[in-house]
Amino acid sequence: MRIDVLTLFPAMFDGVFGASILGKARDKGIVSLNAVNFRDYANNKHNTVDDYPYGGGGGMVLKPEPLFAAVEDLMPEGGQRPRVILMCPQGETYSQRKAEELAAHEHLVFVCGHYEGYDERIREHLVTDELSIGDYVLTGGELPAMVVIDSVVRLLPGVLGNENSAVTDSFSTGLLEHPHYTRPASFRGWDVPDVLLSGHHKNVEAWRREQSLLRTLQRRPELLEQIELTKKERVWLDKLLDAQPELRDR
Amino acid sequence: MRIDVLTLFPAMFDGVFGASILGKARDKGIVSLNAVNFRDYANNKHNTVDDYPYGGGGGMVLKPEPLFAAVEDLMPEGGQRPRVILMCPQGETYSQRKAEELAAHEHLVFVCGHYEGYDERIREHLVTDELSIGDYVLTGGELPAMVVIDSVVRLLPGVLGNENSAVTDSFSTGLLEHPHYTRPASFRGWDVPDVLLSGHHKNVEAWRREQSLLRTLQRRPELLEQIELTKKERVWLDKLLDAQPELRDR
Repeated sequence: MRIDVLTLFPAMFDGVFGASILGKARDKGIVSLNAVNFRDYANNKHNTVDDYPYGGGGGMVLKPEPLFAAVEDLMPEGGQRPRVILMCPQGETYSQRKAEELAAHEHLVFVCGHYEGYDERIREHLVTDELSIGDYVLTGGELPAMVVIDSVVRLLPGVLGNENSAVTDSFSTGLLEHPHYTRPASFRGWDVPDVLLSGHHKNVEAWRREQSLLRTLQRRPELLEQIELTKKERVWLDKLLDAQPELRDR
Repeated sequence: MRIDVLTLFPAMFDGVFGASILGKARDKGIVSLNAVNFRDYANNKHNTVDDYPYGGGGGMVLKPEPLFAAVEDLMPEGGQRPRVILMCPQGETYSQRKAEELAAHEHLVFVCGHYEGYDERIREHLVTDELSIGDYVLTGGELPAMVVIDSVVRLLPGVLGNENSAVTDSFSTGLLEHPHYTRPASFRGWDVPDVLLSGHHKNVEAWRREQSLLRTLQRRPELLEQIELTKKERVWLDKLLDAQPELRDR
């Protein structure tokens, strides 16, 4: 996969593209990661990439020419048009499903603005996807692009080793993860639950499943509606709700 | 404000802490930003920070000792206990409201795991907040911590200049932003709407408000329920829905 990021702050990506999973995926040749300064595509004397908004008002607006020129320059000749992804607060809320969809493409281009608005013609005629990573205000599209890139690249075949099995498992069950414990068995008087030290594999599994259900009920009860429970689990949950009726209101 | 990040990958933060708003806030002395490798707090010969889970199963679990030691070392003597924020998928979904709450604190410590699970005693006895930035799977807590830090620091007094006015305005109205246009007035045959070139300020304002309403209706209709519309706006929206009934189903 090839990933290009159009940004006025390419240096922000240095540490992130070189580290951990992204760095490894790049070293293995599974993905190429390039941060491109789109100021290099400004077609005017002062390398201007933004201008005042028509109709007045505060703030600056990113001009269409540099971004169109940059995307077109990054397209291989005669190649497929890449997905061009604009990170912005008005975008579709990003999700794991979207990560899986993007992971099937060969070429992604991310467009990251910073303070400025985007000329509407960029949205209408250049961009294929507008994404938001959540309902909070950020300074620019760079951090959201890193988030999307990390979540997409880790889905590419050959990228993840076994060290990630635990993390991915927790999502594939549709429940939140159960608590984990490691040594020491007692830390400052706080002890590991006896069942985990018992060596009784079946009891450990049952405890973990119950803890997953409990944590999901406490924190993300809407997830429970989307998974199938065994009869035994339903009985256990009902008992729990009888004992702690305050959980029912969530 | 003081922000410490506990991570095994401190180099990931170099580019981000130095650039843009965060770099400026640091230069102005408004915030101190430190990425600390908590491996330096491992109290064993091999600098081990993780270990196998009690009860078996895949994946590694972060040990309690290094993280407790690191947080305690970062606390000023006799000072207030910092907010200790764990970035994890099971956490509370991050929001602008939470950003505002965190911005009122003097000292934030972020705990970033990477592949590994956390020993439950870290969650129970060290951490004050568990946060998730969205429903997608990431490799570690580093990118989410950067996202939270950016959104918090930009709220601190003295950090933002006027260049951000447009962005913040769009959120304070409770609606998505209207389209922006800048020069050229015609680009590849795509023209700026006449009203924006008219110089008629009142018409420009009315157009922008309608476009904000339209975009919010198309993309985030639930936001409309939370704001007060004028009678005129309600009439305009009803007309629009009569003309395009497919918008009503959203």
